[in-house]
Amino acid sequence: MAAFFRRSRHLLLRWNKHVDLAHVSVRSMASKTPVGFIGLGNMGSPMAKNLLKNGYPVIATDVFPESCKELQDAGAQVVDSPAEVAERADRIITMLPSSPNVTEVYTGPNGILKKIKKGTLLIDSSTIDPAVSREMAVAAEKMGAVFMDAPVSGGVGAASLAKLTFMVGGVEEEYNAAQELLTCMGANVVYCGQVGTGQAAKICNNMLLAIGMIGTAETMNLGIRLGLDPKLLAQILNMSSGRCWSSDKYNPVPGVMEGVPSANNYQGGFGTTLMAKDLGLAQNTATNTKTPVPLGSLAHQIYRVMSSRGYANKDFSSVFQFLREEEEK
Amino acid sequence: MAAFFRRSRHLLLRWNKHVDLAHVSVRSMASKTPVGFIGLGNMGSPMAKNLLKNGYPVIATDVFPESCKELQDAGAQVVDSPAEVAERADRIITMLPSSPNVTEVYTGPNGILKKIKKGTLLIDSSTIDPAVSREMAVAAEKMGAVFMDAPVSGGVGAASLAKLTFMVGGVEEEYNAAQELLTCMGANVVYCGQVGTGQAAKICNNMLLAIGMIGTAETMNLGIRLGLDPKLLAQILNMSSGRCWSSDKYNPVPGVMEGVPSANNYQGGFGTTLMAKDLGLAQNTATNTKTPVPLGSLAHQIYRVMSSRGYANKDFSSVFQFLREEEEK
Amino acid sequence: MAAFFRRSRHLLLRWNKHVDLAHVSVRSMASKTPVGFIGLGNMGSPMAKNLLKNGYPVIATDVFPESCKELQDAGAQVVDSPAEVAERADRIITMLPSSPNVTEVYTGPNGILKKIKKGTLLIDSSTIDPAVSREMAVAAEKMGAVFMDAPVSGGVGAASLAKLTFMVGGVEEEYNAAQELLTCMGANVVYCGQVGTGQAAKICNNMLLAIGMIGTAETMNLGIRLGLDPKLLAQILNMSSGRCWSSDKYNPVPGVMEGVPSANNYQGGFGTTLMAKDLGLAQNTATNTKTPVPLGSLAHQIYRVMSSRGYANKDFSSVFQFLREEEEK
Amino acid sequence: MAAFFRRSRHLLLRWNKHVDLAHVSVRSMASKTPVGFIGLGNMGSPMAKNLLKNGYPVIATDVFPESCKELQDAGAQVVDSPAEVAERADRIITMLPSSPNVTEVYTGPNGILKKIKKGTLLIDSSTIDPAVSREMAVAAEKMGAVFMDAPVSGGVGAASLAKLTFMVGGVEEEYNAAQELLTCMGANVVYCGQVGTGQAAKICNNMLLAIGMIGTAETMNLGIRLGLDPKLLAQILNMSSGRCWSSDKYNPVPGVMEGVPSANNYQGGFGTTLMAKDLGLAQNTATNTKTPVPLGSLAHQIYRVMSSRGYANKDFSSVFQFLREEEEK
Repeated sequence: MAAFFRRSRHLLLRWNKHVDLAHVSVRSMASKTPVGFIGLGNMGSPMAKNLLKNGYPVIATDVFPESCKELQDAGAQVVDSPAEVAERADRIITMLPSSPNVTEVYTGPNGILKKIKKGTLLIDSSTIDPAVSREMAVAAEKMGAVFMDAPVSGGVGAASLAKLTFMVGGVEEEYNAAQELLTCMGANVVYCGQVGTGQAAKICNNMLLAIGMIGTAETMNLGIRLGLDPKLLAQILNMSSGRCWSSDKYNPVPGVMEGVPSANNYQGGFGTTLMAKDLGLAQNTATNTKTPVPLGSLAHQIYRVMSSRGYANKDFSSVFQFLREEEEK
Repeated sequence: MAAFFRRSRHLLLRWNKHVDLAHVSVRSMASKTPVGFIGLGNMGSPMAKNLLKNGYPVIATDVFPESCKELQDAGAQVVDSPAEVAERADRIITMLPSSPNVTEVYTGPNGILKKIKKGTLLIDSSTIDPAVSREMAVAAEKMGAVFMDAPVSGGVGAASLAKLTFMVGGVEEEYNAAQELLTCMGANVVYCGQVGTGQAAKICNNMLLAIGMIGTAETMNLGIRLGLDPKLLAQILNMSSGRCWSSDKYNPVPGVMEGVPSANNYQGGFGTTLMAKDLGLAQNTATNTKTPVPLGSLAHQIYRVMSSRGYANKDFSSVFQFLREEEEK
Repeated sequence: MAAFFRRSRHLLLRWNKHVDLAHVSVRSMASKTPVGFIGLGNMGSPMAKNLLKNGYPVIATDVFPESCKELQDAGAQVVDSPAEVAERADRIITMLPSSPNVTEVYTGPNGILKKIKKGTLLIDSSTIDPAVSREMAVAAEKMGAVFMDAPVSGGVGAASLAKLTFMVGGVEEEYNAAQELLTCMGANVVYCGQVGTGQAAKICNNMLLAIGMIGTAETMNLGIRLGLDPKLLAQILNMSSGRCWSSDKYNPVPGVMEGVPSANNYQGGFGTTLMAKDLGLAQNTATNTKTPVPLGSLAHQIYRVMSSRGYANKDFSSVFQFLREEEEK
Repeated sequence: MAAFFRRSRHLLLRWNKHVDLAHVSVRSMASKTPVGFIGLGNMGSPMAKNLLKNGYPVIATDVFPESCKELQDAGAQVVDSPAEVAERADRIITMLPSSPNVTEVYTGPNGILKKIKKGTLLIDSSTIDPAVSREMAVAAEKMGAVFMDAPVSGGVGAASLAKLTFMVGGVEEEYNAAQELLTCMGANVVYCGQVGTGQAAKICNNMLLAIGMIGTAETMNLGIRLGLDPKLLAQILNMSSGRCWSSDKYNPVPGVMEGVPSANNYQGGFGTTLMAKDLGLAQNTATNTKTPVPLGSLAHQIYRVMSSRGYANKDFSSVFQFLREEEEK
């Protein structure tokens, strides 16, 4: 997703000028003190390594010993539990697979909050339900700590190259402190508002992305069956009101574009099950806020079916392949 | 829809160089001979006037006498039936509300084909089922005439200002002859392929437009309920993979953009019933070609319900208003 | 579909008493005069044979010579075209695959209406768009003939055993004349109203059937995943407000019932593509009458996708199999 | 919903014979000892009164003092908190609005589990997420208590008349003890399996009910627009494969049936927001178990939209009214 957030630096400049520098906390100035990192998976590991590259001592932990070993070899100090991380670092980043993991790592028996120091900055980059982010923030505040949600856009490649985009929710006074660390791991950092809005922004974007992708796939398929050349149809859509990111940057029809998953048998990119997970989060937040999301809801169902019919690990643009097959005679 | 087809001139240049000038028919050179025009409604009337402005004598007819009178006052010669138009003009443009009207005007008892001259060029700018376009083309060919479909994008304003976009289907050799006339009435003319592909392109674009609009509306609504500022959410989407024409050029949320229907209580623009009509055409062609269009199909149903619940004459971006209302307590 | 229309005889008794016998035409009394039959496919062939078994001379035709030969061997007189059938019979039954075939057989160059005799009774048992039925009725009336639509429920087995159900639309005065022939081929005949309402009744029933079947499949699947025994869940639904024909007569989950396609690897029964065709007709009539059918529309899309993903020839209850698969790890 | 679970007594007889009487606990024999009741709303209040009528002393509490006063006047002993109820009763029934309330009442600071006695039987009749039921069961087991889920079908009227249906999940050995109390408040008690399956059965039934109701509404509407008489169409569907509870017991079209909400301007019955809530639970469990529920999901969205467009307090069969309106001209 190279095209993701291209113009955001410009945007940041504007936003940042609203930040009153007098409120920047002392903590954020004390750079190069240790940073905690919990969750060393495909995404977390390269993110933590980028902190090391930027000269930050890293105190790390993970449930998988091999993941810990790998980061130890890269220069991190490994400890046994989130609680121990909290004893030794006053800035901690977490990168975990789902809401229950986050709850466990923060509030479990050996969780961060058991040993947290007052004033600690907690940054959660997991993609989870914004309601859980808000719960964690409340729990952290009771201990005198600050919690921010900062989910990412961009995959493993962007994580390695420090090209991620972070969408950040939390108290604005702490944003600069978070930004100092996040810019070591990403190319763009966007402040979204109160706690949970980082998650909200990510969920909203991915829901609209899924709708646009399925819409593009079915539209291209219909046009092809009506006799239109796929490249020409893409050109027409892209200069018209049908234009969207999925039609002009990530077209799902093989042969229309180069350098996208549809040009490579839908390998790489953003997997169908990952999209189904994000749509599940969108559906949950919509249900809980009683918000109608008819197309988002149907998109969720479509990626759910695809996940169990051979498309689980293909890029989510493979919905074109899913829909295009000719009827059997 | 000012942003519609912005880059198409560039595209045309490239396409046009494929046209072998040796094949350009004599007819297309014989400009300023009379042009027939059938269908003088909200769209047809200003289109015909633009032909007059460009110096073409116009032979016109319509079922409504007042519409004929108005065009007569503007300088056209009015006759009683499509057949009479066909007697006096060898280039005829039709602009009619729906498929049955087109069938009647071409093949009815007083239809064009009853008195058509060999070599006549027929250009239908109605938005209809591409299958009907193909039927008309076959019927015309039997009489030695040529039929092209050339539906338009852009509304009454664009028609008056000669800023329409035409999507043209038909034999490529006749494209220049059609283009000569169409450029008097529009700013962009795109050649799409064989007969029916003009309709196909328009239907496809509008289906994806409807999906993108509803998707944008439900995403913005969800984000707002999750605590995001609507302008900020639009900015984030527009620099991300959720970006689409409905989010960055025609945002449906009041207060996000100026100069769009959402800034004006959803007045003007492209009405919900017109969108429902186009989605009905998309659904019909999808059903007839056995093409699955799950989101297009649901978008059709949503605009259908809106059309009977107070949104018929509002711009189609009013789907945001339809979805946003809070649940009653 | 043995359970189809079980109670309809009772219903008929009530309906039939409204029929004023004085209006019964002379034609319907003149039994055992020849009956025309056009369309000798899987359904038409056994239907025509049942007329022969009941002592009616049959004048038949079909585009496939082998089909004609087979019926000739069974005792029918075969002729070359629908027009010739019309010359020799004043009661004609048609059983054709789709709307265009019906239009061709009635109004084509060698069609029935070219040589039809005044007072002829035309009964079309094809499943087609009710709008086409109405067009045929108007065309027949111009020639002094009467057209009725009488689509069937029940498959090839029911056709062989004369156990079909006919849903009949047309002028009530001719209903008895139609019934005389239809009862030779079916167990139930239901009068539905004006021309086209037979088609309407069939399309409506099958749309609700599809919705109920998919709904039952997804509900059973959800319940099983939540730990419920499928037989117990079916019992609970069937004694509750979730009850429907698909849950209590044709349960799609293997092991819940015997004697249904789900007990036999979804072989036999009513194929997915046939259901998709009927849902396409429902969608077309809904689009044309501007009627919102959100669930019917989505059911159409689901059977459309299934038709191209290996389920084309399986019974339509195989939607359970389509939805049940576990996500890949 | 008088027709709900009509045949369940028969079913129970069969199920009950599997219960080994030797395992029936002593507690269930010790009848007429006090029963705790928490949650005295529209449903809980008449349920608790029916326990009083059957001679059980009731120890009750609720957050609303007026509700407590009303039950005190009816003969119950009122205490201040769930914890106090647990001190004084070893059989406790809870009837609460949603999952968070249940979690609070069981595990909160003054919750049942703070003062629970070993061997206490906890029966939760709230309709909530089955995952929460399982959490409560685990928490109760840690304290040596037994938790069963027993949500109800039937509304306020059925609660007053002790005609509710209970769907019970939990260890089979305790089923008889639960049944002793539940039969005082309901006409039918169905054992569904392990903890959470009572909720699962209710959620599944109501999801299929919603699908059948919307399907019936759109089918009836389509048929009427195609010229069918609504009563006749209902008869045809009800003797055919389109038959479902919503078509034959609770038809949504005014004039087709008497004694149903559609005959009374959609007053009474089961409100649209309540259905939307149950569909939200179904959606959540489906999302969490990665189960595709395309029609259930769309039904949820439709009732969600209706809830904010004037139908919140109308019976859920008012979806016919929502869909039927004619398009504006």
